[in-house]
Amino acid sequence: MQQNFHTLDEILSQPDAWEDVIQRVEKDRNRLNDVFRNEEYEEVLFLGCGSSYYLCLSASRVFANFIGRKSTALPSSELLLYPDIYLKRGKSYLIVPVSRSGETSETVNALSYVRESYRIKSFAISCYEESSLLKESDACLILPRASEKSVVMTKSFTSMLLALELAIALSAEANDYYRELQTLPKLGENIIKRYKSFLEDFVKDLGCEQFVYLGSGPYYGLACEAMLKMKEMANLPCEAYHTLEYIHGPKSTANDKTLVCLLYSADERKWEERFLEELASLGTRNLIECEVSMDRIRKLSDLVVEIKSELSDFARGILYMPPLQLLAFYKAVKRNLNPDRPKNLSQVVTY
Amino acid sequence: MQQNFHTLDEILSQPDAWEDVIQRVEKDRNRLNDVFRNEEYEEVLFLGCGSSYYLCLSASRVFANFIGRKSTALPSSELLLYPDIYLKRGKSYLIVPVSRSGETSETVNALSYVRESYRIKSFAISCYEESSLLKESDACLILPRASEKSVVMTKSFTSMLLALELAIALSAEANDYYRELQTLPKLGENIIKRYKSFLEDFVKDLGCEQFVYLGSGPYYGLACEAMLKMKEMANLPCEAYHTLEYIHGPKSTANDKTLVCLLYSADERKWEERFLEELASLGTRNLIECEVSMDRIRKLSDLVVEIKSELSDFARGILYMPPLQLLAFYKAVKRNLNPDRPKNLSQVVTY
Repeated sequence: MQQNFHTLDEILSQPDAWEDVIQRVEKDRNRLNDVFRNEEYEEVLFLGCGSSYYLCLSASRVFANFIGRKSTALPSSELLLYPDIYLKRGKSYLIVPVSRSGETSETVNALSYVRESYRIKSFAISCYEESSLLKESDACLILPRASEKSVVMTKSFTSMLLALELAIALSAEANDYYRELQTLPKLGENIIKRYKSFLEDFVKDLGCEQFVYLGSGPYYGLACEAMLKMKEMANLPCEAYHTLEYIHGPKSTANDKTLVCLLYSADERKWEERFLEELASLGTRNLIECEVSMDRIRKLSDLVVEIKSELSDFARGILYMPPLQLLAFYKAVKRNLNPDRPKNLSQVVTY
Repeated sequence: MQQNFHTLDEILSQPDAWEDVIQRVEKDRNRLNDVFRNEEYEEVLFLGCGSSYYLCLSASRVFANFIGRKSTALPSSELLLYPDIYLKRGKSYLIVPVSRSGETSETVNALSYVRESYRIKSFAISCYEESSLLKESDACLILPRASEKSVVMTKSFTSMLLALELAIALSAEANDYYRELQTLPKLGENIIKRYKSFLEDFVKDLGCEQFVYLGSGPYYGLACEAMLKMKEMANLPCEAYHTLEYIHGPKSTANDKTLVCLLYSADERKWEERFLEELASLGTRNLIECEVSMDRIRKLSDLVVEIKSELSDFARGILYMPPLQLLAFYKAVKRNLNPDRPKNLSQVVTY
């Protein structure tokens, strides 16, 4: 009989959690309309640790694309250690701290420190109603249905990212984008159904012990997060890069035991296409996620994950995550590791 | 008899190259005074690929600290693939492309594309007098003595970074910082003399096959570059993180075969100190670079590299590089690899 894992439950139940996020944002839209639109701040800083930092990387690209004002994603520790690099006295900032628990020490302390010393407003994203982070924040968006029993973040990652994307869409009055995001739960269910056993089988025959995740623009943060899932669950060496950066040095360790996971964009991007030729010459094994596959993608892939969403690059990103989370989960199980009990880690990092 | 390696020559001759950079900037200071000071641009974008991108990460932190205007470091490919995320029409930018050869396709093409479509000025850093990049640039700083025979960048990395730091110091009228940077060649020679054979011996007994490089603020880009050296020369799995990010997931793969290389700052930073306790609990082997060691650093280190420069954090960074380059070089030699001929790589990436 198959063992039950919280992590697997949480990966598979993501579409439900997304549906809850969508309804929650819709109900609250009058308030959320203004969060990113108001003219009080000159720059937005997305702040987090680990998975939440990677979420920030992706959200800040979405923000810059739709809102157009300056945005930066930072590990919370950077603001703690070097505030003067990132904040200037006299300028005004909107800080967006992201923390599943709302208790991550560096994030709570970074916010608490900068609100005393600089002109900032804050808008926090978290999964719990009561937390130290919320006490420090001016406003917040809480997603209780995205909370998790697992140490490793999966459902909470995609749900908190979706919440930010929806809020950005509202503030930018990007109605098409907002409607696209509302279709994600149905599409996500479909992808999980199509690829779950596929990925389980794929991992069974996969000898790879080194994993590389590549993505550009809004997908770079997602590639980092997928890398962290494999590292946390399956305890293997993994790396993530901006797609084309891989050929500037990191490819030196590529071999036939390397699985390259490429988060491919759909909008026509000449340079990303050229990268496929480069990849073909490396002799790695390849998993490519894309909207719809082309001949040249199929030819060089061991597995193609077709999203088939008909969504824009910026709306489709979240759908790339469940297959990569499942890949890490099944790889861990195959290595006789328990994904619910990752080595060295705890649910909340406080110290 | 010991074999001669270009890479080793270039690592060891860095202080000479730095001296040349210092004189070159000093002679040209009337022109360089204004490069970053002029009010024509609202934001600066540092642009590069691979090592040059990591250089940009470090330079952009130095810039933000001293000049105070907004600065961003980007892989050139990000600007090629997603220009609208990073550039807004109507705003004005200073682009600082960095390329050893001046021929890196993505960097040349990114600059050529954005100068047609956006309001930009550019100031290029390179090691060769004639190049496609210079033809596209409004102004430049060329460092012929920093050019290399090797594929792997060492001397060119530190020299181009030093050139940018000096130019930033001039524009910021940061005279103390400028004078500090002028002392680097002498200090660099001293560090190489003190640690060269130490590191050669250290590697002989080092069983580690996994390397982690950690740094914050201006040291994060340096940690990334040190990571890339080990990967390129010794062909081993390596990772780099903002120091405290390591405890948010990546530490899950830490074990007694992991060497953690920490680029420690000297200015008193409470959170970095707490990180030492965390590190002590992981059972990794540790190499710590610091200004002057303390008891707690010595206790948890297999090797301490003391810089002993009496310089500020922002001036001292470049001195952290030669020991880490030597570590990668000797590790490669010990693995019977030729650091002059890294796997899969070429000197210039064009396509």
